Amino acid sequence: MEISSTFDNMTGLTHDRPVQTSSFCQQFASVDAAGNYDVMNNVVIPTPGAPDPRAQNSLRQSWEMNYQEAAIYLQEGENNDKFFTHPRNANALSAYLFAHNHLFYVMELLTAVLLMLLSLSEAPAVPFLRLDVYVHASLELLALAMVAFELCMKLRWLGFHTFIRHKRTMVKACVLFIQFIEAIVVLVRQTSHLRVTRALRPIFLVDCRYCGAVRRNLRQIFQSLPPFIDILLLLLFFMVIFAILGFCLFSANTADPYFSTLENSIVSLFVLLTTANFPDVMMPAYSKNRWSCIFFIVYLSIELYFIMNLLLAVVFDTFNGVEKMKFKSLLLHKRSAIEHAFQLLVTRQRPDGVCLKQFDGLMRFYRPRMTARDRFLTFKALNHSGATMLSLQDFYKFYEVIGLKWKARRIGEHWFDDLPRTAFLILKGINLLVKSKAFQYAMYLVVAINGIWILVETNMLNDGVSWTHVVPWSYIVFLTIYGVEVLLKITGLGPLTYFSSGWNLFDFSVTVFAFLGLIALAFDMEPFYFIVVLRPFQLLRLFKIKQRYRNVLDTMFELFPRMASLGLTLIIFYYSFAIVGMEFFADVVYPNCCNTSTVAESYRQINVTIGNQTVLKEGYYYLNNFNNILSSFVTLFELTVVNNWYITMEGVTSQTTHWSRLYFMTFYIVTMVVMTIIVAFILDAFVFRMNYSRKNREPLDDPEDEKGIVFETEVSQTEALQTLDMYKHTLGITNLSSLQDMCVALERSGHSSLVFLGRRSRTKSDLSMKMYEEEIQEWYEEYSRTNLQPDETFHRELDSPEASATNSIN
Amino acid sequence: MEISSTFDNMTGLTHDRPVQTSSFCQQFASVDAAGNYDVMNNVVIPTPGAPDPRAQNSLRQSWEMNYQEAAIYLQEGENNDKFFTHPRNANALSAYLFAHNHLFYVMELLTAVLLMLLSLSEAPAVPFLRLDVYVHASLELLALAMVAFELCMKLRWLGFHTFIRHKRTMVKACVLFIQFIEAIVVLVRQTSHLRVTRALRPIFLVDCRYCGAVRRNLRQIFQSLPPFIDILLLLLFFMVIFAILGFCLFSANTADPYFSTLENSIVSLFVLLTTANFPDVMMPAYSKNRWSCIFFIVYLSIELYFIMNLLLAVVFDTFNGVEKMKFKSLLLHKRSAIEHAFQLLVTRQRPDGVCLKQFDGLMRFYRPRMTARDRFLTFKALNHSGATMLSLQDFYKFYEVIGLKWKARRIGEHWFDDLPRTAFLILKGINLLVKSKAFQYAMYLVVAINGIWILVETNMLNDGVSWTHVVPWSYIVFLTIYGVEVLLKITGLGPLTYFSSGWNLFDFSVTVFAFLGLIALAFDMEPFYFIVVLRPFQLLRLFKIKQRYRNVLDTMFELFPRMASLGLTLIIFYYSFAIVGMEFFADVVYPNCCNTSTVAESYRQINVTIGNQTVLKEGYYYLNNFNNILSSFVTLFELTVVNNWYITMEGVTSQTTHWSRLYFMTFYIVTMVVMTIIVAFILDAFVFRMNYSRKNREPLDDPEDEKGIVFETEVSQTEALQTLDMYKHTLGITNLSSLQDMCVALERSGHSSLVFLGRRSRTKSDLSMKMYEEEIQEWYEEYSRTNLQPDETFHRELDSPEASATNSIN
Repeated sequence: MEISSTFDNMTGLTHDRPVQTSSFCQQFASVDAAGNYDVMNNVVIPTPGAPDPRAQNSLRQSWEMNYQEAAIYLQEGENNDKFFTHPRNANALSAYLFAHNHLFYVMELLTAVLLMLLSLSEAPAVPFLRLDVYVHASLELLALAMVAFELCMKLRWLGFHTFIRHKRTMVKACVLFIQFIEAIVVLVRQTSHLRVTRALRPIFLVDCRYCGAVRRNLRQIFQSLPPFIDILLLLLFFMVIFAILGFCLFSANTADPYFSTLENSIVSLFVLLTTANFPDVMMPAYSKNRWSCIFFIVYLSIELYFIMNLLLAVVFDTFNGVEKMKFKSLLLHKRSAIEHAFQLLVTRQRPDGVCLKQFDGLMRFYRPRMTARDRFLTFKALNHSGATMLSLQDFYKFYEVIGLKWKARRIGEHWFDDLPRTAFLILKGINLLVKSKAFQYAMYLVVAINGIWILVETNMLNDGVSWTHVVPWSYIVFLTIYGVEVLLKITGLGPLTYFSSGWNLFDFSVTVFAFLGLIALAFDMEPFYFIVVLRPFQLLRLFKIKQRYRNVLDTMFELFPRMASLGLTLIIFYYSFAIVGMEFFADVVYPNCCNTSTVAESYRQINVTIGNQTVLKEGYYYLNNFNNILSSFVTLFELTVVNNWYITMEGVTSQTTHWSRLYFMTFYIVTMVVMTIIVAFILDAFVFRMNYSRKNREPLDDPEDEKGIVFETEVSQTEALQTLDMYKHTLGITNLSSLQDMCVALERSGHSSLVFLGRRSRTKSDLSMKMYEEEIQEWYEEYSRTNLQPDETFHRELDSPEASATNSIN
Repeated sequence: MEISSTFDNMTGLTHDRPVQTSSFCQQFASVDAAGNYDVMNNVVIPTPGAPDPRAQNSLRQSWEMNYQEAAIYLQEGENNDKFFTHPRNANALSAYLFAHNHLFYVMELLTAVLLMLLSLSEAPAVPFLRLDVYVHASLELLALAMVAFELCMKLRWLGFHTFIRHKRTMVKACVLFIQFIEAIVVLVRQTSHLRVTRALRPIFLVDCRYCGAVRRNLRQIFQSLPPFIDILLLLLFFMVIFAILGFCLFSANTADPYFSTLENSIVSLFVLLTTANFPDVMMPAYSKNRWSCIFFIVYLSIELYFIMNLLLAVVFDTFNGVEKMKFKSLLLHKRSAIEHAFQLLVTRQRPDGVCLKQFDGLMRFYRPRMTARDRFLTFKALNHSGATMLSLQDFYKFYEVIGLKWKARRIGEHWFDDLPRTAFLILKGINLLVKSKAFQYAMYLVVAINGIWILVETNMLNDGVSWTHVVPWSYIVFLTIYGVEVLLKITGLGPLTYFSSGWNLFDFSVTVFAFLGLIALAFDMEPFYFIVVLRPFQLLRLFKIKQRYRNVLDTMFELFPRMASLGLTLIIFYYSFAIVGMEFFADVVYPNCCNTSTVAESYRQINVTIGNQTVLKEGYYYLNNFNNILSSFVTLFELTVVNNWYITMEGVTSQTTHWSRLYFMTFYIVTMVVMTIIVAFILDAFVFRMNYSRKNREPLDDPEDEKGIVFETEVSQTEALQTLDMYKHTLGITNLSSLQDMCVALERSGHSSLVFLGRRSRTKSDLSMKMYEEEIQEWYEEYSRTNLQPDETFHRELDSPEASATNSIN
């Protein structure tokens, strides 16, 4: 009896009423049981005597609403959505739910991508993707209509007041409006006009839910801008001073085109800032007077080696601070979200704890696809104190346990423990073999020999590669060795263990690719020959030998998502610049153009007679053009790399006006900002990682580290059965196979309890939590000092203008 | 009477005997008063009864020796000389004293500089500095003889055992030997042979006392090397993989010279690593197949944007750690030096304190040119506890107070307080004027107008600058305004206050330069026209307006010494590479050379007919040669800037062998190391500075900050008189004018006491002290745990092999 009552306490089976009721269920409250509810407080007034089924039903509905709102709060905490966009009533809720699921997100993303891809087909189009005007204009209108629809849903959910207060959404609406009008104009005129506004299309992409990382990057870039601009001004200031100086010193030299006017002087020194015209810019002056090199050495020392690095230092420092602040605000936002959710989950009877029942209700909304067993295990993992309910302190750890993947701890060591004796012995032997150092080093040796082989082989092919159908025997030999290694490892370690290591995955895929290459060679499939040349990537395996490389490559993989989002951010900038470039510079450069400029040489195609043979001498730079979006991207990448960028600039300038330089210079400065941020990011990430491992006296190759975060939870048989019972009878949840499986597993194991392990990979946030351990406590204290108590915050928020507005509507 | 006795205690007038006696005075001990001394302990055995004048005399000599040795210990602590090079006996001492004074240091430096400068005159010489073989070879022999003499002194001071254990000295000796032989060979043959060993000459410079900073830089570079090399290997590895890939993909294209052989492929990708041949290297492949750009984009993204930044991150991280460790070891070394010195200064009677008498004796050796007053004030500044003696804890602060410049606190506020009323009022008015915001902003406005004026004026001179003798009136107007400003400020603030600010000094010198320019213009002195074009630097004053710029420029000035030493380090590398370059590549490139290479264009000088005018089209790259050391330096600077460096490389390669590329590639990698270190240093210094000001919640523009470190000491009249008395009668020091002045000033002021302020500028070490406050305590604890007690350390050191060796010699 006692156990049962405790258990009852834990699961919260008594018909408790929530302390606070979701703002969504006001309708129910007033419609369903008007007589029984205290509308002012939105709380059920208990009917004395036997439970009234009507009241009970509406109580359940009220709880469901609470679960849903709590789940929404937690989602908002996770996504860093501000609470003022929180849905305030049932209408808003339905719009919110419509706009917050993956289907909607995917639609949002596809629409944005479609809009951006349209520029492939709009004039100036990529030749093989050209579409008629009415086709691409109609597609655009369709996509814009979709965006408009999405915005309408958002308006419905946010309410008009919040909608116009939300800056990003307002900008999006304005851009949408302009694009709409322009698309209609294009459709009517049946021809594209000068549409620079297309450069704003990435806004739709940036606003997508899935592009949160890009948004954060952009925010970080804008936050780093003010100090950046200050130093940039210093840079430009020195540039102008030196331009005046250079003009005064070198303009007397008629052989020197770089300093003939003040404008030329400034442009030359701007280009010199990027080193792209060095040492050419110095040569005419240097040939006249050897001491003139001092001017250039001083200029480069100050500008390139000092101020440019200063720029990096300032951005790095700002970046550092911004990263910490971002982490802090995210952390506190999550904490606040948890407090909001907690208030919605506690009952009147026990206002300081959340029972399994409530937690389960929350999780059904928060993670609909989570099994009942995992919901139960997550509850147990949160429940550190061992009490029947989760205190607020327990609940604060919500986001730490939510991503865990639960698995019963395996009792056996190997996957083949259950196999018959002979098989076991063989597999055990293989296991020991593949785990041995000798085997590993033998494989390294094979890879090294393979590498030398490839190098020697390639070096012998002095007159170019000829694709013969004969497969070289060395290829087959090495591939066989690698194939055997992969098979041995898979059998020895078991497929699961094998594929859980990133390095093994890499080995496996390289081997498979090599095999595909062999097939391509054997069956003479020419387009796939490129696979064969990927062979040398096998050599990357050699870098496993040294600790530092493993760390570097591991960190590289950890950084990859963030790097990808930075890359995407860069592409968004590229896109905007490509559109502007196409609108103004499409088809302005061509072979033998630009004869009036100093860089005519690079665009010239002439026949040169050497001996008695006529050879076409090509100046290829006409290929760096803005004729379509793909060419523009390549051109912009070349401008990013900076070397010889002024040839493209001068070419375009000579065909258009002097003002074109503004485009190129602006692009240079923008990429400089983004690149500096990228460098600062890589620096910061690595230094952080290294500091982390130093601070925690934990070698980076700690095998525990690879496994990420692990939580352990022990479940006894009685507990499991009771939980199953509870779920079956009281909560009325039908899909309980996971819980039943757990009970069966417990029985089969013969032990009275089973340990479950919850794992997830370690994130930057986990590292930050450890790094800033002490500061976090300060932040929490500061947070609880400056904020009102959670209850009060909640009430205050409900009393805020929007809340009272929604209240008055109902 | 009581005061007098306390004072007696403080000054230590009683004839105390030292606890330890300097190892130098063993001779005296055994010779002068053999009967009275305990030779084993080197301590005077007191003669009972009346003071024996002989014993007294030798006691004084013994003390003098102690002072000297203590001063040497403190010097070793300051210079970070290891204690095993400490002189051990009287002979060593005299050699030590000979080798440790500024005359010797200057000689050392001049010899090293002379040796390095010789390469200006040796074949291939700078034309106007060419010397005959016998002249420069004799000069070299002379300089080498000087170095040999210096080494002999060192041998005498260190003793043979220590000498051969000191690595740097041994290397120097070997290099000296080789150079000697070579110089003699040159003198005999009367012609220079292939003397690559001249590249080792900078070793003599590096070994100079004054080049300690360069030595530290080099050490730091070498310490950062291991992680650097690891990442470099990764970089080169990817390069080779991509070279094989590129060769396989593009060698079929006959129009593509970049990937025709594997060697070309590797060289092309190495150059691409520096971006110097981008986008040219891509163009032939790109024009055949547009998708081939992916190869180059992937390569650059991995190598240039990822691994190169990784390199910086790793070096930055190592650098950070190394900086901290360096600070730690310096700090502990200083502490140990202080402990050694302290042991030599305490008396038998009071073994835990140092009296003024002993302190004064020490300072007379440590800072011979310090006045008696300053020695007394320094003692007072150290004496925090107010007791009559310095405890070890007090004495630990020795290095913090030693650089202080003492000044009596001025009672008046302005320099003109003592002037008559009218003058005072006028000057007060000027003072208020120049301190007012309005005046400052008016000046900013003038500077800004001047800037715009110069810009517009220069822009109007479209056909080059013509130097007319007519001085433009705007020049005179603005110069007058600046002149008036300078005069007003000097009169208003007083010359001392005015010139103590760096910004004012800058203003002053720019104005003086402008005035000199005016004179040059007016009197038509053509060679000084360059001064006129320096005018725009006035505009730098505008950067005073914004806080961030002031910080940046201040930090820049703080960093300047370190930057200069890094620059010197770079020049030393340049020197070695220049020598090697001259030996192998002198006179290999000339106009119209290199016709077999792909860069022939850049070396070609041809007459081009445009219309009916024949113009000489110059490919100037033949100027980038190794024909003499100055040209080599310029060429190497161009290689450092990297852009188009491969033109120089290919030009030289086509005239010599393929192996020449090794030289250029090695140089690139070496400069990459040094440049990465420089970037890491700037990053580190700025981030450190910003962290410092954040941590100490102290705005960087704190006026106190500008003043640096300030110590205050109050001296009462009695104390001053007593000290004077003590100095006069007991210590027998004659040059007491400074103390007498102090007494006079005290009497004149009418106050019973006077406050003296000791100031020095804040150094990096002071900042580090504050930044690592907590860690420093740990270090000290660790230090006292792992080390023996100071006494024991001392004894242990005396018992070490060298010490016993020297002991046995005597």
